[in-house]
Amino acid sequence: MTGILPSYVGDAWWTPRRDGGARAGADATVVRDASTGDEIARVSTAGLDMGAVLDHARRVGQEGLGALTFHQRALLLKQFAQTLTARKEELYELSKRAGATVRDSLNDVDGGIGVLFTYASKGRRELPNAQVHLDGPAESLARDGSFLGRHVYTRLPGAAVQINAFNFPMWGALEKFAPAFLAGVPTIVKPATPTGYIAEAWVRMLVEAGDLPDGSLQLVSGGLAGLFEQLRLGDLVAFTGSASTAARLRQQIPSGVRFTSETDSINASVLGPDAIAGTPEFDAYVKQLVVELTTKAGQKCTAIRRAIVPAASVDAVVEAVRAKIAERVVIGDPRADAVTLGPLVSLAQRDEVLAAVTRLQDAGGRLLLGDVEPPEVTLADGSRGAATGGAFVAPMLIGFGVDAPPAAHEVEAFGPVASILPYESVAQAAELVNRGGGSLVTSVATNDPGVAAELLTRTAAYNGRLLFLDRDDARTSTGHGAPVPHLVHGGPGRAGGGEELGGIRAVLHHMQRTAVQGSPAMLTALTGVWHPGAAARSDRHPFRKSLAELAIGDQLVSASRPVTLDDIETFAHFTGDLFYAHMDEDAAAANPFFPGRVAHGYLLVSWAAGLFVDPDPGPVLANYGLENLRFVTPVSPGDAVRVVLTAKQITPRETDEYGEVRWDAVILNQRDDIVATYDVLTLVAKEWHG
Amino acid sequence: MTGILPSYVGDAWWTPRRDGGARAGADATVVRDASTGDEIARVSTAGLDMGAVLDHARRVGQEGLGALTFHQRALLLKQFAQTLTARKEELYELSKRAGATVRDSLNDVDGGIGVLFTYASKGRRELPNAQVHLDGPAESLARDGSFLGRHVYTRLPGAAVQINAFNFPMWGALEKFAPAFLAGVPTIVKPATPTGYIAEAWVRMLVEAGDLPDGSLQLVSGGLAGLFEQLRLGDLVAFTGSASTAARLRQQIPSGVRFTSETDSINASVLGPDAIAGTPEFDAYVKQLVVELTTKAGQKCTAIRRAIVPAASVDAVVEAVRAKIAERVVIGDPRADAVTLGPLVSLAQRDEVLAAVTRLQDAGGRLLLGDVEPPEVTLADGSRGAATGGAFVAPMLIGFGVDAPPAAHEVEAFGPVASILPYESVAQAAELVNRGGGSLVTSVATNDPGVAAELLTRTAAYNGRLLFLDRDDARTSTGHGAPVPHLVHGGPGRAGGGEELGGIRAVLHHMQRTAVQGSPAMLTALTGVWHPGAAARSDRHPFRKSLAELAIGDQLVSASRPVTLDDIETFAHFTGDLFYAHMDEDAAAANPFFPGRVAHGYLLVSWAAGLFVDPDPGPVLANYGLENLRFVTPVSPGDAVRVVLTAKQITPRETDEYGEVRWDAVILNQRDDIVATYDVLTLVAKEWHG
Repeated sequence: MTGILPSYVGDAWWTPRRDGGARAGADATVVRDASTGDEIARVSTAGLDMGAVLDHARRVGQEGLGALTFHQRALLLKQFAQTLTARKEELYELSKRAGATVRDSLNDVDGGIGVLFTYASKGRRELPNAQVHLDGPAESLARDGSFLGRHVYTRLPGAAVQINAFNFPMWGALEKFAPAFLAGVPTIVKPATPTGYIAEAWVRMLVEAGDLPDGSLQLVSGGLAGLFEQLRLGDLVAFTGSASTAARLRQQIPSGVRFTSETDSINASVLGPDAIAGTPEFDAYVKQLVVELTTKAGQKCTAIRRAIVPAASVDAVVEAVRAKIAERVVIGDPRADAVTLGPLVSLAQRDEVLAAVTRLQDAGGRLLLGDVEPPEVTLADGSRGAATGGAFVAPMLIGFGVDAPPAAHEVEAFGPVASILPYESVAQAAELVNRGGGSLVTSVATNDPGVAAELLTRTAAYNGRLLFLDRDDARTSTGHGAPVPHLVHGGPGRAGGGEELGGIRAVLHHMQRTAVQGSPAMLTALTGVWHPGAAARSDRHPFRKSLAELAIGDQLVSASRPVTLDDIETFAHFTGDLFYAHMDEDAAAANPFFPGRVAHGYLLVSWAAGLFVDPDPGPVLANYGLENLRFVTPVSPGDAVRVVLTAKQITPRETDEYGEVRWDAVILNQRDDIVATYDVLTLVAKEWHG
Repeated sequence: MTGILPSYVGDAWWTPRRDGGARAGADATVVRDASTGDEIARVSTAGLDMGAVLDHARRVGQEGLGALTFHQRALLLKQFAQTLTARKEELYELSKRAGATVRDSLNDVDGGIGVLFTYASKGRRELPNAQVHLDGPAESLARDGSFLGRHVYTRLPGAAVQINAFNFPMWGALEKFAPAFLAGVPTIVKPATPTGYIAEAWVRMLVEAGDLPDGSLQLVSGGLAGLFEQLRLGDLVAFTGSASTAARLRQQIPSGVRFTSETDSINASVLGPDAIAGTPEFDAYVKQLVVELTTKAGQKCTAIRRAIVPAASVDAVVEAVRAKIAERVVIGDPRADAVTLGPLVSLAQRDEVLAAVTRLQDAGGRLLLGDVEPPEVTLADGSRGAATGGAFVAPMLIGFGVDAPPAAHEVEAFGPVASILPYESVAQAAELVNRGGGSLVTSVATNDPGVAAELLTRTAAYNGRLLFLDRDDARTSTGHGAPVPHLVHGGPGRAGGGEELGGIRAVLHHMQRTAVQGSPAMLTALTGVWHPGAAARSDRHPFRKSLAELAIGDQLVSASRPVTLDDIETFAHFTGDLFYAHMDEDAAAANPFFPGRVAHGYLLVSWAAGLFVDPDPGPVLANYGLENLRFVTPVSPGDAVRVVLTAKQITPRETDEYGEVRWDAVILNQRDDIVATYDVLTLVAKEWHG
């Protein structure tokens, strides 16, 4: 008998104690090799104190993560990614036991590592090096500017309980863990039993590398009995799995606890009416369909379950799929090199898939490709034979008529199985898509923007993701079934109604958005971002201050510079910008926005730089950009302009000797009218000894 | 007997039919005047076909709103606001029957109209004049740029069922209706029975004005029995009311239907330790507390229920409140001019409030101010006397000790009642705030940014809104109990876990966010926004095209302009920008980002304008701004630059003869390296005959 898979809780490894004379694990669940049926491990959390696990997350985990900024957490995610990258061959080998080919592991192992890298990068590029994230601009709530409102995101004060499906023991777990970690919320991860040993492996690798903040990650290798009723406001639960389990959990979880679910959906892939055999879109459609049938043996919540094709193209699609499968697909034990389609994860899963196929057949579906008999397979040693104990299923296509029964939109065969549903019009294709009741993804192969637009308009609200395949992106598309960390993963209705990934969006799902109202000075103190109206300090030129010396509110009020017609002429001829509003008094005055000839906006911005720049080498290394420039009041010859520049936000980099400083810039005229407002973006050295 | 309050369904007025010999309304609920107990109306929806109401919204309402853009819907909201403004005296008068003083109606009537105006304005300023809203930038998913991802919001395809509380029959309904309408989702509004006649009045005013698109607004004046089980994916329910009703609805509504709730919470107001008697913050705190006790007779989900004050200041606060109430508060029938505190909405509500007070007393609370006896009141004719049939309650403060019992954080007396909870440390004050289990709002009076920051950090995740009162904003603060349309209204946990308002955020809650993947050409076609890599057209100079002629993708590739050291010198001396990176070869080369002397970024942007501007009067009226400027590659003397300008997004205005055009600008050097990228913002005439 194999041992019991350990949990990692309270920053230590844990297995059930032997007590009462019973051998540990005697009542545990047995996990077996998908190809051979050999026992791999046993799973049990009998006796685990769930209250202690939660308490550790809420106290130790919150404290450890709370000491770090977004950027520091992002850099740790990068380290985790590097740790796992260095050991990914081990993970590939282990994943073969679950039926995953190396190509499958590109989705799970490399995909999971990719999520970590993406969040490491986005966390530093798109979040401040701070602990609070601002949402949207400040809103003025008083005419005199003395009362403002702004939205801030702060992390949830509890634990993120993440319940994963068996099919992606790495990607599925890491795509939940990375955003929670970046938000600063400690994770309790609960892998699915059939592949919990793979989750245990990557968690062990991270523990061994020693970079995990205390309490930031706990692993419960088994059931969560006793945990849900102890959840409270500030905790959240993210679930991936079946809709029925999601519904049960939703009832079980105390009110006030956030719950998000991502459930398998009956995803569709539409072949456009223009994409007839011979077009690049037809080829891309068929290739993608075969990939979705065979990757992870079709055990993907995003896989294509419904191929919605023009009635006239059904035969062509089936034949093209048949040819491609014959050419490419070798079923067998992933330990044999030639194998491209592994077994399902377990005999139980195989039986469920075959039962679903029977239901689809009973509802009128006809097997157009493949059959339900156990296929001959390639064994680990490369020989061919019957698979005793292996959960192998051959790819199948099931055909329906134009009026497909509800079962075709509701029954999921979670394996290498798809239905073919014919349609007559694009509106009908959209109607078929929507009958899925909400999907994670629908893909469309078309080169006709009109078809694409109609399908977008009619089906977007029923889908979390829509992928449009055409000749331009067929080669570079990341594929129907592949969520990317940059984009939202999840879908309405049947798909669970949740959202994961989507870059920083998923981080924010682990935070509370709160409207904060107060005076400019108070909002400045609370957000670390200077708000107009708050106190400013004008001592030394702020460009002479390194990040060690600079503070938000440090301000330069420039000298005033008169504007002459000669200046405007000079600038016009130097730049070539002879726009009539600058050059022709009558034509300018006829324009609805100008009183007569006015200075170029770019002249004013260039002069403003001349007024605020400090010429000598100093801590300000470069002006790398400018944002939100608005020209408010035109400037006429005879006016004078000055600029007020105030340090607004300071973002030191963790891994460079400088950081970003955002400056609030306001150009004023001699009557104190606002001429222009913008943000100046600079890089400033952390230290300067000049 | 009064008549039955009509519903407005299927674009017609409806009341229950007299049939079976029973007189209509015999079994209806009777609604009475809050001050006098006189019968006002009866309420019943017996026999109303809820399926037909839903069907009308989903078909006729969706079609009517779907034909309009965001801007067109926003302009209709402005018309609705104007219609109601013109008739607001009628609404004030009617509201008095529910116990509302004219000051109360400023919250409900004017507040509701204000929401319409704000959404009318934000809808045109912050949304495109289109039907799809883009969320975040395009994400490149392929190295060669041939595959992109982007998030779009499209409206939900169903009905928005809005269930309102009795206390704000206008504001409460309009703050849900406005965002739904702007999103393009038809509303079915169900007012609370005690004030349904006020909802009927404003709906009637909008119907009479004739501007409502067919099916965009239906009113169900009574129970919704039979509706919930007919909801489906694409519908949504927004509820304001008690936590227990919210919990019941949550169970009742089919899965896949969005549900959001805003429930009364036990909101806190903290007096900072620095805000001792005599400080402006103390005065502001007391003034606000009295306002919250008395406005709407304390019948506000946002009212202060827990005044959390330093133990040493309890007596001072109670005495100051007592003095202010004695000075300002006149209880009575709102039809009497002097009255500043009206009755509760009904005798049933009064009894509930008094029962809650008893529960608080039983838990150890002491009445520090006011009492539970029926107060002497000012009658409608100005005389003083006992109120027979009126639901009057005097303001009360209930004191607790430092260890307040759970009841102080859980029992809500929905009237002019607040508890006083003393604290010893700021951490303890935060802990008390959080024991409310999630609130709509907490306010803090302090002039100490350290106190404010500690309270923000510790309590933000437990609050939908935090208001900081200090001497700078005491005069202009919109107040603890006043949600503003710009900011999110809602809160976690006990407060319902929902979000309303918050400007465009609430519009998006009525839409589905979908990730869209495709080639640049396809994303351009689907979003109406040009994406780099999509086809471009270079025929005439695009600045010679009016909006009638211009299309996204219209492009100008400029001539190339060589850059000389002399140019850099000239620009430097003209603008005064003598930064060493432009002027000193050695110092520039020592900078980590520059190869030696480089051209000013603003020189390049100015030249780019010179290269793309068309000098003569034409349809391009003005350059009003610039966004997202990034300097990517430095430009050295000897380089040459050119600019590629492409029409990216076109936003014609509904009410002006021009619109905004956003241009994608890319400056390239002679090696085709990207030098700078930005968006140019222009105003362009709809027509031009030049």
